[in-house]
Amino acid sequence: MSLHKPALDPQAVEAVSRSGYPEPYYSRVMPRSKRKLGDSLGLTRIGINQTTLPPGKESSMRHWHTHEDEFVYVLAGEVVLRTGTGEQVLRAGMCAGFPAGAEDGHQLINRSAANAVYLEVSNRDSADRAYYPDPDVDLMWNPPHARGKMTRRDGTPY
Amino acid sequence: MSLHKPALDPQAVEAVSRSGYPEPYYSRVMPRSKRKLGDSLGLTRIGINQTTLPPGKESSMRHWHTHEDEFVYVLAGEVVLRTGTGEQVLRAGMCAGFPAGAEDGHQLINRSAANAVYLEVSNRDSADRAYYPDPDVDLMWNPPHARGKMTRRDGTPY
Repeated sequence: MSLHKPALDPQAVEAVSRSGYPEPYYSRVMPRSKRKLGDSLGLTRIGINQTTLPPGKESSMRHWHTHEDEFVYVLAGEVVLRTGTGEQVLRAGMCAGFPAGAEDGHQLINRSAANAVYLEVSNRDSADRAYYPDPDVDLMWNPPHARGKMTRRDGTPY
Repeated sequence: MSLHKPALDPQAVEAVSRSGYPEPYYSRVMPRSKRKLGDSLGLTRIGINQTTLPPGKESSMRHWHTHEDEFVYVLAGEVVLRTGTGEQVLRAGMCAGFPAGAEDGHQLINRSAANAVYLEVSNRDSADRAYYPDPDVDLMWNPPHARGKMTRRDGTPY
């Protein structure tokens, strides 16, 4: 019996592999894929993806958001959570949360031999910006002069 | 190795059994319990609970929200999703979403013999109100004249 809205089987949602990162960051995350559960259900105030991260790949470059809380919950496999204070292994059933405006960047890295699957959740705020604190990552997301775009740290375009 | 913030093991968070419902609704949901993951992680823009619903119990009375999107993801066991258009069974790995302002009330019911565990997610909006469309449920949540309170449908207090 197949589900219908407002219910949803995540497996019925297309897994999309896409990233707005320029190289060399693009290759560090791809072919990570996302099933956009919130969009599929008509939600506009929260974003919810079920993401599959292949072995060796990163969820994103290490970053923090100005106006959006973020939450991740590991459903299968395991990932390494890397923040400014070090690394922790998150296995299935574990979670993590990143308050808007807390200036400690985070990313997930799959150092295992199997796919990792997790839910990622956030509120949606068009004023949101993301900063990337690692010195070797020259990125900024959604500055006021370049809405919806990834720029260099100094605000200039790629 | 125990996790520390921004990571969290949900099992380390106290499971709280509490409801603002008056009888006879209180007994229909209790002793449902919630681990407040979002609060534990310092999140203020999204709310995230890991909820355990015992056999025979309801997640809430059937309701809808004016300003908050809601999302549920079943982690273990199974629940019946009941809306104005009927019932569907959600098993572990299935989800459902309820856009703010969509006037189709919903609730989860555990008709199985085992506990069901699910994540429930929403944005947070102090203007939010909840309406309860079932004729036998005389409730309204957070009307402007009674902030943070459950009243009767006509707005009078319990």
